[in-house]
Amino acid sequence: MAKNNPGNFFEDFRLGQVITHATPRTVTAGDVSLYTALYGSRFAVQSSDHFARAIGYPNAPVDDLLVFHIVFGKTVPDISLNAVANLGYADCRFLMPVFPGDTLSATSEVIGLKENSNRKTGVVYVRSTGFNAAGAPVLEYVRWVMVRKRHEAAAAPGDLVPPLPKVVAAGDIGKACPPLRGAAYDNTLAGSTQRFGNYMPGERIDHVDGMTVEEAEHQIATRLYQNTAKVHFNQFTEGQGRFGRRLIYGGHVISLARALAFNGLGNAFHIAGINGGRHVAPIFAGDTVFAWSEVIERLELPDRIDVGALRLRLVAAKNRPCEDFPYKTGEDYDPAVVLDLDYWALMPR
Amino acid sequence: MAKNNPGNFFEDFRLGQVITHATPRTVTAGDVSLYTALYGSRFAVQSSDHFARAIGYPNAPVDDLLVFHIVFGKTVPDISLNAVANLGYADCRFLMPVFPGDTLSATSEVIGLKENSNRKTGVVYVRSTGFNAAGAPVLEYVRWVMVRKRHEAAAAPGDLVPPLPKVVAAGDIGKACPPLRGAAYDNTLAGSTQRFGNYMPGERIDHVDGMTVEEAEHQIATRLYQNTAKVHFNQFTEGQGRFGRRLIYGGHVISLARALAFNGLGNAFHIAGINGGRHVAPIFAGDTVFAWSEVIERLELPDRIDVGALRLRLVAAKNRPCEDFPYKTGEDYDPAVVLDLDYWALMPR
Amino acid sequence: MAKNNPGNFFEDFRLGQVITHATPRTVTAGDVSLYTALYGSRFAVQSSDHFARAIGYPNAPVDDLLVFHIVFGKTVPDISLNAVANLGYADCRFLMPVFPGDTLSATSEVIGLKENSNRKTGVVYVRSTGFNAAGAPVLEYVRWVMVRKRHEAAAAPGDLVPPLPKVVAAGDIGKACPPLRGAAYDNTLAGSTQRFGNYMPGERIDHVDGMTVEEAEHQIATRLYQNTAKVHFNQFTEGQGRFGRRLIYGGHVISLARALAFNGLGNAFHIAGINGGRHVAPIFAGDTVFAWSEVIERLELPDRIDVGALRLRLVAAKNRPCEDFPYKTGEDYDPAVVLDLDYWALMPR
Repeated sequence: MAKNNPGNFFEDFRLGQVITHATPRTVTAGDVSLYTALYGSRFAVQSSDHFARAIGYPNAPVDDLLVFHIVFGKTVPDISLNAVANLGYADCRFLMPVFPGDTLSATSEVIGLKENSNRKTGVVYVRSTGFNAAGAPVLEYVRWVMVRKRHEAAAAPGDLVPPLPKVVAAGDIGKACPPLRGAAYDNTLAGSTQRFGNYMPGERIDHVDGMTVEEAEHQIATRLYQNTAKVHFNQFTEGQGRFGRRLIYGGHVISLARALAFNGLGNAFHIAGINGGRHVAPIFAGDTVFAWSEVIERLELPDRIDVGALRLRLVAAKNRPCEDFPYKTGEDYDPAVVLDLDYWALMPR
Repeated sequence: MAKNNPGNFFEDFRLGQVITHATPRTVTAGDVSLYTALYGSRFAVQSSDHFARAIGYPNAPVDDLLVFHIVFGKTVPDISLNAVANLGYADCRFLMPVFPGDTLSATSEVIGLKENSNRKTGVVYVRSTGFNAAGAPVLEYVRWVMVRKRHEAAAAPGDLVPPLPKVVAAGDIGKACPPLRGAAYDNTLAGSTQRFGNYMPGERIDHVDGMTVEEAEHQIATRLYQNTAKVHFNQFTEGQGRFGRRLIYGGHVISLARALAFNGLGNAFHIAGINGGRHVAPIFAGDTVFAWSEVIERLELPDRIDVGALRLRLVAAKNRPCEDFPYKTGEDYDPAVVLDLDYWALMPR
Repeated sequence: MAKNNPGNFFEDFRLGQVITHATPRTVTAGDVSLYTALYGSRFAVQSSDHFARAIGYPNAPVDDLLVFHIVFGKTVPDISLNAVANLGYADCRFLMPVFPGDTLSATSEVIGLKENSNRKTGVVYVRSTGFNAAGAPVLEYVRWVMVRKRHEAAAAPGDLVPPLPKVVAAGDIGKACPPLRGAAYDNTLAGSTQRFGNYMPGERIDHVDGMTVEEAEHQIATRLYQNTAKVHFNQFTEGQGRFGRRLIYGGHVISLARALAFNGLGNAFHIAGINGGRHVAPIFAGDTVFAWSEVIERLELPDRIDVGALRLRLVAAKNRPCEDFPYKTGEDYDPAVVLDLDYWALMPR
């Protein structure tokens, strides 16, 4: 038996199969510092123990996307080592806050399988869950990836496209946010006077600033998440490939856009769920990422007077400022757009 | 009202105005590791809890410049987002040691305003203060920046150039350094046998080594400080600007030069104050920074037999070794000089 | 007396001389995060406090190579500042686990001196030891370096080539590994079903993946270790030198190859000793590192039923995948080979 990991091919998956992923990971203050250093995030809740405690957290929680990236990274060697493309996300819900010292582990359940008509690849749908050391789920999300078959002649291991919610349900939003003492939430320290009530559906916000990505940065980030996808690290091989360049982990772009979004959404301190997301185009080292947001919906949460939820579209573009909100012409994305993310953010009321 | 932050323009400031800056920040061991990794600093007091405790600290304190950069970073969105140039620093005093776990916040008071004769810009003088979570000041400094006006026709908001000390007074030096057990200070572990009494005014020291700066490094550093100044991160915009390049945060150069200065000033473990500083020329990724120091003054501190203060000129040059101490010809700086910093360092007696 | 450190030249060393190195260093969770981010290491024992505790550690231990690099870094200013070449390692033994919070210091004893026939250089053999704050040795190793003489006419300070073991003795292996509860060691979480008994002498394993190195990465790593060797940081000087490039610290290559080796040796969680190592050729930024391993020997350890030791040859190559195990033709290394490391790894039985 080969000692190294060849990864799973399409025909290796089974409907209902549950995969426990390797390398549990204790998240520490060191990870938090690196996350800040890689993206420049400035949300007060995640930056300051003092601020977080004042409003009702036991300590500053770890950035939601850092949790997402670590859990995602664990799934790669089992799910997407032989992936051709990462096709989408759905029903991503943050269920408990994560703090430095927590140990994260992950499992994935195969919830859908659909062979492509060329019989060379198939789409694998997994519901992945991140757990803390007590075994409580902290994050759950569905993703689907196109995976190569080992043998074209192999039988398809299943044929099911699972139903998926277009939007995370209101009852599932906010579980990772403790009840907050709203009066203690200091707008000045948070960096924005704009609260839940100030945002209107349809409103669009240019996040103004741009961030240029370097090879060392995305590699450092992606290794921090122990994500082993080959395309991010190996210039020798990628240099001979389709792009001639190392591909940047899509999650790196999400984190860059989210950090830029502070400038206009400074009180949107917590990502409660991700409804869907699409990496519209790849970015490469040297590209400059800009971003803008649109408020899709404003949702009062059942039984919560402390926070409300904004459904936001976060669009990132490369090498193109976003003051005119580049998006789509008909079905076609503006050629500069690289990310189209639909998520729920909590904001104090 | 715009959701994103347009920053303050010259006419938005008022004399006596006090601005509370956003994003309190808990400093952690992760920040300390990154600081070491970015500059290679080797002062034993900041590197070793064991060494620090032996001489009288409760733990290894956070590097003074890391504290400075974090506090400085907080002031940027309110003070210098529309700055044309960072003109100078004065009267910078470190008042309490900072340890991992401390949460830093910052305020600035406008102490001077002077419109330029072209009426397009004005100089804003602020006294910025960093606080720990208990509300005690840990750092105070004055800086002045040239800020654009929004409207050329706007009235000047004030007309006062504040008096500033040329040198931090002796009584203000050493407050962030607890009484030390001098006998426990181990020269061998500290890496230098040269103490306070061995340095003579007029003495010049070449720090020998050179450090080449990479884009990823200064971006990681500047984001670690949550400094949002656009010129450091956005190659798309800067590529069309005056230099065609991202500018490196001036504080990055100070930290590089300070770390190089260990080689010759290994016992100058604490920056007690900064009398003044000038970023003589910008540096860019690919430049190699060298440094040298001159002892300007040797000061015995009132009531302290444990440490004395050296007033030092720290000069950094780019792409030019400093064995012949490049500085000025008449009023003009040597074209290689990039930094001229006048500061007080403590050294055991 | 010069304030800056000129380093020791060959004639400055004496047989039996013991040098205490500067800058004790408290290792923290921040260092661990950076180590993960720089190499992407995925061994569960070092990644998860929870996993480590389950098998018998008090907490996740610090990666062995991070300990090695920090101790090695301390020796540079005294031993190899004037080195022409780092010639070899031997008898490297890890003696106690290191945890975040431990403070490391180091000494070196000169155990051999041999002038070269050209009288311009000599070889210095040192046994270096890393200690924790309690004064207990955590690591010991011999290295030998070719060091310049200050004056060609100076007398040789000694003439002894010390006897060195070719292989770390069985009785010296495993001291840094507490007795493990083997039943609690979870293959799935560790990421490999292959244990001690599954590896056979002569077996060769391709580690498949490649990692491209960036200037910012190796500089950040080498500064994290407070290693001051000039050749790694100074493009101004190195640009005029033999390679025209900054040389990458050899230890960076060892850590990259070790992290790649997870893919095929996922349960080889601990480096117990290094028998010898050779940096066959330099690597530079932009090079992609691949690696493969050969099992040289399988050793049951006296009195231990929890773990066994594999003697492994770890070979790294640049810009060349290793599926055909490039190594030597006769005495000559394949031109792509950059590292040939012979070490003992522990693996659960």
